[in-house]
Amino acid sequence: MNTNASKANNGVNVDALLAAREALTAAPEAAKFRWRATCDWVNGTYSRSAVDGFFGLGDEQQRKTTFSFEADHPAVFASEDRGATPVEYVLVGLAGCLTAGIASVAQNRNIQLRSVHATLEGGMDLAGILGIDGDVRNGFEGVTVRFKIDADASREDIEALVAQSQKRSAVFDIVTNPTSVTVEVV
Amino acid sequence: MNTNASKANNGVNVDALLAAREALTAAPEAAKFRWRATCDWVNGTYSRSAVDGFFGLGDEQQRKTTFSFEADHPAVFASEDRGATPVEYVLVGLAGCLTAGIASVAQNRNIQLRSVHATLEGGMDLAGILGIDGDVRNGFEGVTVRFKIDADASREDIEALVAQSQKRSAVFDIVTNPTSVTVEVV
Repeated sequence: MNTNASKANNGVNVDALLAAREALTAAPEAAKFRWRATCDWVNGTYSRSAVDGFFGLGDEQQRKTTFSFEADHPAVFASEDRGATPVEYVLVGLAGCLTAGIASVAQNRNIQLRSVHATLEGGMDLAGILGIDGDVRNGFEGVTVRFKIDADASREDIEALVAQSQKRSAVFDIVTNPTSVTVEVV
Repeated sequence: MNTNASKANNGVNVDALLAAREALTAAPEAAKFRWRATCDWVNGTYSRSAVDGFFGLGDEQQRKTTFSFEADHPAVFASEDRGATPVEYVLVGLAGCLTAGIASVAQNRNIQLRSVHATLEGGMDLAGILGIDGDVRNGFEGVTVRFKIDADASREDIEALVAQSQKRSAVFDIVTNPTSVTVEVV
């Protein structure tokens, strides 16, 4: 916690978030969002994805920009490494989600952040995806996230920030808990 | 299946993948990979992540390029929309993984792909992440992936391609099954 009376500024508009919580408590339908991506195969294991609109607050939401992403497999998989590997995108999502949460919680607790750095690692035994061993899963055996945080707060308060961020993180939930995925051919 | 004797070319080196499967069956330690990302908080809910090296085949693997990604929250969350939302990165990873799998399986089955387009949608009730309702999860309620595939194959064969891709997809496994995530402050 800040030891002086000055207000922390982490660039998060917490007042707006608290107002949104109040508004969405009163209008629960508006809280139902639908996030989207599209993907086009290019060649080999290389694909391009796009992220633009989403549905929320009861309406279609358009963005000013379309975000584009390239995914591929690396050279050691006999591919050409033209983009990050799909599982690395999951790590990027997890990193971004927990980091945004830390900034938001810090703002709400009036803790000034100076820097937040995360390193993530996910172990994977390729015996799964290559079909060598049916007892080995395809995905990560586990993921470790290490945060190095410089902030105007005690170590205990920093650990509490990180814990609260985990508790409210969408991607942390998606990775740690099962989510139903329906795949259709149209 | 191809109706003539010509060999499909989807740009996937299936021979190398089958050789890798054989080699990694003989040397199981080499199949143990560690994928990584780093992330730096910039301001507000905005962060930048980087993906470069990984560990695999018993050694550190360096890439020619570092892949960089920006994540943020959208304007409707009182943020500045400077990058895709973290949960959208998960959709991008899922799309890229299933699409690479479809190309690889098609190659192995000698099916020529002409185009593969996917649209993904993940529903999310913000009552979870905003702490409005403790019974609502933070992550996706569910994800739908719709593939439109033009290929030199019957509808049945195309559906079998997609099913096999799901069966061997790392990100599909990560999203549909629980993965342990350890978060540490160093």
